[in-house]
Amino acid sequence: MSLPRIAIDAMGGDEGVRVMVEGAALARRRHDRFKFLLVGDEARIERALETHPNMRGASEILHAADVVSGDEKPTQALRRARSTSMGMAINAVKQGNAGAAVSAGNTGALMAMAKLALRTMPGIDRPALAALLPTLGDNDVIMLDLGANTECDARNLVQFAIMGAAYSRIVTGLEAPRVRLLNIGTEENKGTDQLQVAANRLRQTSGLSMQFDGFIEANGLSRGDVDVVVTDGFSGNIALKAVEGTARFVADLLRRSFQSSLRSKFGFLVSRPATDLLRTHLDPNNHNGAVFLGLNGVVVKSLGSATANGVANAVAVAARLLEERITERITADLAELGEERLRDGENNGKEI
Amino acid sequence: MSLPRIAIDAMGGDEGVRVMVEGAALARRRHDRFKFLLVGDEARIERALETHPNMRGASEILHAADVVSGDEKPTQALRRARSTSMGMAINAVKQGNAGAAVSAGNTGALMAMAKLALRTMPGIDRPALAALLPTLGDNDVIMLDLGANTECDARNLVQFAIMGAAYSRIVTGLEAPRVRLLNIGTEENKGTDQLQVAANRLRQTSGLSMQFDGFIEANGLSRGDVDVVVTDGFSGNIALKAVEGTARFVADLLRRSFQSSLRSKFGFLVSRPATDLLRTHLDPNNHNGAVFLGLNGVVVKSLGSATANGVANAVAVAARLLEERITERITADLAELGEERLRDGENNGKEI
Repeated sequence: MSLPRIAIDAMGGDEGVRVMVEGAALARRRHDRFKFLLVGDEARIERALETHPNMRGASEILHAADVVSGDEKPTQALRRARSTSMGMAINAVKQGNAGAAVSAGNTGALMAMAKLALRTMPGIDRPALAALLPTLGDNDVIMLDLGANTECDARNLVQFAIMGAAYSRIVTGLEAPRVRLLNIGTEENKGTDQLQVAANRLRQTSGLSMQFDGFIEANGLSRGDVDVVVTDGFSGNIALKAVEGTARFVADLLRRSFQSSLRSKFGFLVSRPATDLLRTHLDPNNHNGAVFLGLNGVVVKSLGSATANGVANAVAVAARLLEERITERITADLAELGEERLRDGENNGKEI
Repeated sequence: MSLPRIAIDAMGGDEGVRVMVEGAALARRRHDRFKFLLVGDEARIERALETHPNMRGASEILHAADVVSGDEKPTQALRRARSTSMGMAINAVKQGNAGAAVSAGNTGALMAMAKLALRTMPGIDRPALAALLPTLGDNDVIMLDLGANTECDARNLVQFAIMGAAYSRIVTGLEAPRVRLLNIGTEENKGTDQLQVAANRLRQTSGLSMQFDGFIEANGLSRGDVDVVVTDGFSGNIALKAVEGTARFVADLLRRSFQSSLRSKFGFLVSRPATDLLRTHLDPNNHNGAVFLGLNGVVVKSLGSATANGVANAVAVAARLLEERITERITADLAELGEERLRDGENNGKEI
């Protein structure tokens, strides 16, 4: 079976065309079945392609006149979606002209455009942004939502758990990934009403393709004993950024300590392989590629600051989800469950 | 002026009496004006005191028959507050028998007991738990609320900002500490209604003893360019624990990397001073002592796992707040502002 091609928003990201095209070329060196639709300024894409002969015959250019800027409001970007590289990449997925879209541009705009063009899947009320975080265990942990929904109710959280588990089954190969809800304590009575209603529902529902283990606190995210962490987009974004910021903080402190004396500087040189190992493990490029789950199509967000290696990893995430038919899997899991049974979990429409 | 004595819940914490008494003795070695009321099992406290001659004449024992356990529900602990070491330590503050209380016990129970016995200050609706986090800058950053209130409205957030700024002025000596609200973006339209209402109020109100700088994302917590970070207790707890967990995660990764080869092991030995510096900077004991702000009295929470050094630091926090009259400072700041002007900031009672 051939893999549908992947649409690349070639204009998004801090460095734009050069890194996006280089990332796609790198992804193709790793997996030569990858094919691309490169969306953006034709002349600039053609120039970037000159140094990547392996992209010849494996990529087509779709000219887009406009670019969504990093600080543009989503509502504003939506109005000119049809002429932007981001909007046209998503539209290619909608038209079946590509199987998935990858963009390193403005997250809010990407979310808004993807939601409007692709619509949420039947049985899912809201899409969620999911990403992989490094852990001390053998597998990364999937966390969602990371910011697509500022406020969520219990029903949203249950749906996120189902989508996260489907994603985790693809990544880990586990039949029943371990799923937990992010909370401020692990006791049953902790947290908001929404969390308690969602936990009860996940505990009581049979037929879910997951092992629901209750709550997890944010200090357990990297422990490696859970596969999926479910949360509302506000808390998820706070947790994700606190993790990123602290990892950078500790690395900065370490660098500073190593520069504190001649002996330490020497120690640093000797320890180079060890600190390089640490850097590799923490490098966000090695965990790049957040995915909007719950849409009728695969849309992957690459970090704005991603290197070519990061972009290649985001492309690999998109290809994997496409190949493993994430959308069909989520649909099947929802069908198994029955719409009625999910509705029972509603908390009278009360918002957090 | 002599410092009022500090009540120590000698039974709280993972290791109980021995560490609490050792911590108090260590605090007294650092500041010999400290005096203590040691609350708990008399026989065990007396035994612990035997090895600390510097505590003689500087401490009195108040016998308490009961102990609040770590997993006890706050409501249950409240019912037997009068006979527990935690409840009696707080009551000593209420009676004027001590100036402040320090406990390493159950946080929820401590909060509930402190709130019931000491009541919130006039002009403050809810107390908040505030702690210091290490940064790359010269000063620690104060973050509040860390879990006392799962849900907060805009009015609560504004009050937390005022209390946090008062605390920061004591710690940093700054006249107008830099205050920000924790959010999932720094643009004005980001986050919940509550955050936007609180931000507008803090931006528009004159006479506040702070420099309000808008929003901060969780990846900026350790940057050192802000003195006070204000948030609801749910997000604050998530952020705090994500920071703690990640710092431990990175330290574990580093240890693992150093053990990966003989060369790395040698490098580790040579780099010892550098990694020790890192460990010292990140050791939670060196930032120990979270305080419940907004009560008619000073109550400090020490980490359950704190060492004697950690307990001594928590005692020092209590003494500092007592000496600098934190409660009077907050009262003065609120008076300056006028109750009416704060009320304007209400968001129609809508909860987050």
